[in-house]
Amino acid sequence: MAQSTQLLGISNAIVDVLAHVDDAFLEKIGAPRGSMTLIDRMRAREIYDMMGPATEKSGGSVANTIAGFANLGGRAAYIGRVNADQLGEIFVHDMRSLGVDVRIPPASGGSPTARSLVLISGDGQRTMQTYLGACTELSASDITAKTVGAPDIVLLEGYVWDIAEGPALTAKAIQLAKKSGARIALSLSDSFCVERHREQFLEAVKESVDIVFADENEIIALLQVGDFAGVHDALGEFSNLFVMTRSAKGSVIVQGKETIVQEAIPVQKVVDTTGAGDAYTAGFLYGLTSGRPLAECAKLGTWCATGVIQQVGPRLEKNALAGYR
Amino acid sequence: MAQSTQLLGISNAIVDVLAHVDDAFLEKIGAPRGSMTLIDRMRAREIYDMMGPATEKSGGSVANTIAGFANLGGRAAYIGRVNADQLGEIFVHDMRSLGVDVRIPPASGGSPTARSLVLISGDGQRTMQTYLGACTELSASDITAKTVGAPDIVLLEGYVWDIAEGPALTAKAIQLAKKSGARIALSLSDSFCVERHREQFLEAVKESVDIVFADENEIIALLQVGDFAGVHDALGEFSNLFVMTRSAKGSVIVQGKETIVQEAIPVQKVVDTTGAGDAYTAGFLYGLTSGRPLAECAKLGTWCATGVIQQVGPRLEKNALAGYR
Repeated sequence: MAQSTQLLGISNAIVDVLAHVDDAFLEKIGAPRGSMTLIDRMRAREIYDMMGPATEKSGGSVANTIAGFANLGGRAAYIGRVNADQLGEIFVHDMRSLGVDVRIPPASGGSPTARSLVLISGDGQRTMQTYLGACTELSASDITAKTVGAPDIVLLEGYVWDIAEGPALTAKAIQLAKKSGARIALSLSDSFCVERHREQFLEAVKESVDIVFADENEIIALLQVGDFAGVHDALGEFSNLFVMTRSAKGSVIVQGKETIVQEAIPVQKVVDTTGAGDAYTAGFLYGLTSGRPLAECAKLGTWCATGVIQQVGPRLEKNALAGYR
Repeated sequence: MAQSTQLLGISNAIVDVLAHVDDAFLEKIGAPRGSMTLIDRMRAREIYDMMGPATEKSGGSVANTIAGFANLGGRAAYIGRVNADQLGEIFVHDMRSLGVDVRIPPASGGSPTARSLVLISGDGQRTMQTYLGACTELSASDITAKTVGAPDIVLLEGYVWDIAEGPALTAKAIQLAKKSGARIALSLSDSFCVERHREQFLEAVKESVDIVFADENEIIALLQVGDFAGVHDALGEFSNLFVMTRSAKGSVIVQGKETIVQEAIPVQKVVDTTGAGDAYTAGFLYGLTSGRPLAECAKLGTWCATGVIQQVGPRLEKNALAGYR
């Protein structure tokens, strides 16, 4: 019998279209640096037509984490909607080739597979313009006892609340996961996403989410505090495990009265920050599901994020643990 | 009025699917290291299913040269067949975004856009398994006075002879090009391709081709000599310009009694040799169309090839001339 799944991800399944741009390009399309903007199919075409030559790689925030977790040797499964088109085939191939159990098949008909135009600035910062396409057709009926199974942890992303049935399908996933004894993890996606769904995220964190992954801006937006110093006080009323990344300032883990601070690993040159947070989450959850202490989970997360910012694209291409001590 | 086209490429339009593999993988699929094998759609699916996560980038030998030529600032045009599918859209976008005049539209219906499974070994050597798809539907009727126009040079690739109407359409292109006063360049593609079409290539070289681009194995295969030392003697009977690349041994240019030897630029680590020859050709032709002496053309070619072997993928991502002196 196959060993049980450790981590199930439910998220927007996206192929990244990565290209280097200058700041003038971002200004021209009116995109704030580092932001993620949802766009429609026509706007995606407009911006794509203005972009230089690109590279295509599978992406999607929690999908990247799932791929990273599998790369580390974890047993992973995935629920997300792609179309049965060429980009969908690429997305599913890249998951399966890492051993990820892809739980729902590509849709015949409907919208094309989602793509995110990832605009990489000179300093490695990435700005995303995302056409959700087939992702928007993920529905509560895709979430069943069979597709969810009995993983150790179910990882959701905030972006799922952006799609029509997002609230319903995440509620159903949480209910099924709780019934099987799984822990629920939520990645907050980005601060604009938190602004869009703050009340629902807060309610989920208070009622059902066990582990929250957030960067500095996201946790500040969730808790509505002035700065990161205010975060710690605000967390006093929560018992969840909070895993917070702060770019070059490292990461901070808080659970009840316990706080762990993990330094970042200095790098010579940041090539592309796409997927840094996702890779951190992969490393952290790999540590957690293999029973390591929180401090080592943070170290593993940092290791994976450090690797991914030194390449173009969101998923580590080499063996993620190579060189790790 | 727009300035006239300097270089028109006619070739197989292909999207590369690049992944790192070990030697055992190449053995398992029975692929000789460094070779290019034509495969059908089912075999492409079989091998793809066995491959790890991949990166998708526009490719195709002469198409890479055209992209590189445009990156250098040259005025380029392109004829090659893609389908109106997602990979075709990617291919055409990547050309147009460099300013290349794409002369025939993607086909609605017919076979999907071609893809080449590019298997990169530990030492950077690449082995290709290519499904030609829509490329095979390029026809002599696509080659007209309008689509060919009046470029300075028409660049053909040996691989075009692999498709059904290849001999007819290249003959037509040569005829139209000659009428407009264009020079004809032929890239020999690979030594197996030369074996498949030696007599036709030799005839073309004797009758109509002005410039031959070849690597060491290709020129040896064409001339049926024992080694590279034998090439020089055999070339005595030709008046064409021969541009021959020899990997780490640099390149050799021969025209009549003139011989130029260009050293390779040493690199710390070869990441991926995909597109090295194509990039060389781009640099060389950029030099030639801008009126530089052959020695500088060779230097430009070497510069471009050196850049491309230090990244994954066949087309230089940065400005190709940055840093060139």
